[in-house]
Amino acid sequence: MTATLFVCQTCRIAGQEPEGEDRPGALLHHALLAEPLPDGVTIRAVDCLSACSQGCSVALSGIGKWTYVYGRMALTDAAAILDGAARYAASNDGVVPWRERPEIFRKQSLARIPPQAPPNRSEP
Amino acid sequence: MTATLFVCQTCRIAGQEPEGEDRPGALLHHALLAEPLPDGVTIRAVDCLSACSQGCSVALSGIGKWTYVYGRMALTDAAAILDGAARYAASNDGVVPWRERPEIFRKQSLARIPPQAPPNRSEP
Repeated sequence: MTATLFVCQTCRIAGQEPEGEDRPGALLHHALLAEPLPDGVTIRAVDCLSACSQGCSVALSGIGKWTYVYGRMALTDAAAILDGAARYAASNDGVVPWRERPEIFRKQSLARIPPQAPPNRSEP
Repeated sequence: MTATLFVCQTCRIAGQEPEGEDRPGALLHHALLAEPLPDGVTIRAVDCLSACSQGCSVALSGIGKWTYVYGRMALTDAAAILDGAARYAASNDGVVPWRERPEIFRKQSLARIPPQAPPNRSEP
């Protein structure tokens, strides 16, 4: 089972002016790369996830799985993001049981999109 | 070329209390079904796109294409949504030239997610 974790490179922190040369999105990408990479997870930097007012933003997708987009991620969330990515990667359809999701995933979802093929289950 | 237009059934209008029995998301789904269906577009109702504070929400996806999520759609936007869906369906990678997108798509994007396979181009 696999997952791709997309990390927006150009995100600013929602509601804050940039302080340095590096965008918070790029710094979050570096922070994620500095953590141990869970089995089955690939990290991919992207130019823009079009969630600019909700930065930093990340997305999780996998073939045949629901796609999830999360916002207002902080640099200190790197380990929790990868924990959530690992659980997503280990799932069949991308739907991780609610209580097993990191709190930032439970509270900071921006959107989720069904897989192309109709899933065998839906979630309320 | 094809596209799936996902329509959230349980969306309320952002910032408004529900007025009737039918959720605005379900009403938007009906409004979309009442319009002529563009070539290559499939409409799929979904229980929840997890964009609850930005309803009504819809998403466009296709195999090998970028996925887009849009929010704050009104019932009167059905024709414009289908116009945007038709242009998305006709595209190779889901990235419709900016000026050709309906205004509601230009201004009310919640997120976009790259296709699983790396695309040959990226968009600023």
